[in-house]
Amino acid sequence: MEIKVLKNIMEANDAIAEKNKEIKKSRGLLMLNIIGSPGAGKTSVILKTIEHLGGVCGVIEGDITSDLDSRKMAERDIPVVQINTGGACHLDANMVYRALDNLEMENGVLFIENVGNLVCPAEFEVGEDFKVVISSIAEGDDKPYKYPLVFSKARAVVLNKIDLLPHMDFNREFFFSGVRALNPEAPVFEVSARTGEGIEAWSRWLQDIFQDLQKARQ
Amino acid sequence: MEIKVLKNIMEANDAIAEKNKEIKKSRGLLMLNIIGSPGAGKTSVILKTIEHLGGVCGVIEGDITSDLDSRKMAERDIPVVQINTGGACHLDANMVYRALDNLEMENGVLFIENVGNLVCPAEFEVGEDFKVVISSIAEGDDKPYKYPLVFSKARAVVLNKIDLLPHMDFNREFFFSGVRALNPEAPVFEVSARTGEGIEAWSRWLQDIFQDLQKARQ
Repeated sequence: MEIKVLKNIMEANDAIAEKNKEIKKSRGLLMLNIIGSPGAGKTSVILKTIEHLGGVCGVIEGDITSDLDSRKMAERDIPVVQINTGGACHLDANMVYRALDNLEMENGVLFIENVGNLVCPAEFEVGEDFKVVISSIAEGDDKPYKYPLVFSKARAVVLNKIDLLPHMDFNREFFFSGVRALNPEAPVFEVSARTGEGIEAWSRWLQDIFQDLQKARQ
Repeated sequence: MEIKVLKNIMEANDAIAEKNKEIKKSRGLLMLNIIGSPGAGKTSVILKTIEHLGGVCGVIEGDITSDLDSRKMAERDIPVVQINTGGACHLDANMVYRALDNLEMENGVLFIENVGNLVCPAEFEVGEDFKVVISSIAEGDDKPYKYPLVFSKARAVVLNKIDLLPHMDFNREFFFSGVRALNPEAPVFEVSARTGEGIEAWSRWLQDIFQDLQKARQ
């Protein structure tokens, strides 16, 4: 019986995720599901990326309870909708559906910042174009080995806080091997949201995908 | 119906947690539920703490899939049992019950390293004496505000990676205010598992609690 309930929840989620995909398509949005540990630097990377991208960008902020991150977006006049999950450890499609309903935005890049958690968010589709995992040097080099699902599902990996490399025991080769074993195709962008290093290459990659999407619509 | 199922799961969990408490008591164990983000340094802090504590110490390692952390314990001849949750984002009481069954250990401090996740592990009792949250400087100063449940439930907070303070924008006062608002009683230990700084004060606090427990048994 329990399994049946879980299956129903997952089916319901995926049905709403399909609706979100239609909304996204009709509005010309590139929709990214940004997943990372607490403190990986999701918000900071998104802010720096939006600076570089220019054009239309928006954010859906997922948080258990606070609005700290969405205030940072609003301060910079970035269109943002806050989802407070009230305890839930991930965003689901229905939460994003309601957020889309409250976000006026067309022909741009929409960042969905998931709840800080490397585990549960990887299991729920919200209708995104693809997932991006943000990992940080400070978390250590073993994250792909310990949280394989999110690394295997991501279209790209952003390795943040590379400015801390001189101060950490971080084995880049070990990290990259772990990513490659799970996900041979995904590019890994080494960045520092703090210094801005590497943000340009990552933003350009994103910009190219967005422009291809826009061309395909014409 | 869904709520009923969830309630049954929680009730079943709490009943097994009570059994774990009896086992712990009969064996004279101080049992800590160690909770923190991926890469907060849970394993490193536990290793350094065991070095300082001396005496009988053991570890139950919770991980989704790898045995990287338990190998580090075994290399140092620390009694360890690995729990692989196979996807689940937290340890539950039944997993710990089975691990206790496989760990021969009496009159000592047992560290249960939960899955790297600041959200879900806070919701499940496993029969521990108390929870300890390990947060790191590298995660930023806003963690108590964004993940309040675990900070409110913890008996102590360990703030790790203080060696990174000169390289980070971390507002200690903001962090401490966040903890205090949720949990006025919990001591906050500032440590670096890398340099060893602060480990002694934290270990002494733990040792005192363990000795009180031992005295109460006599």
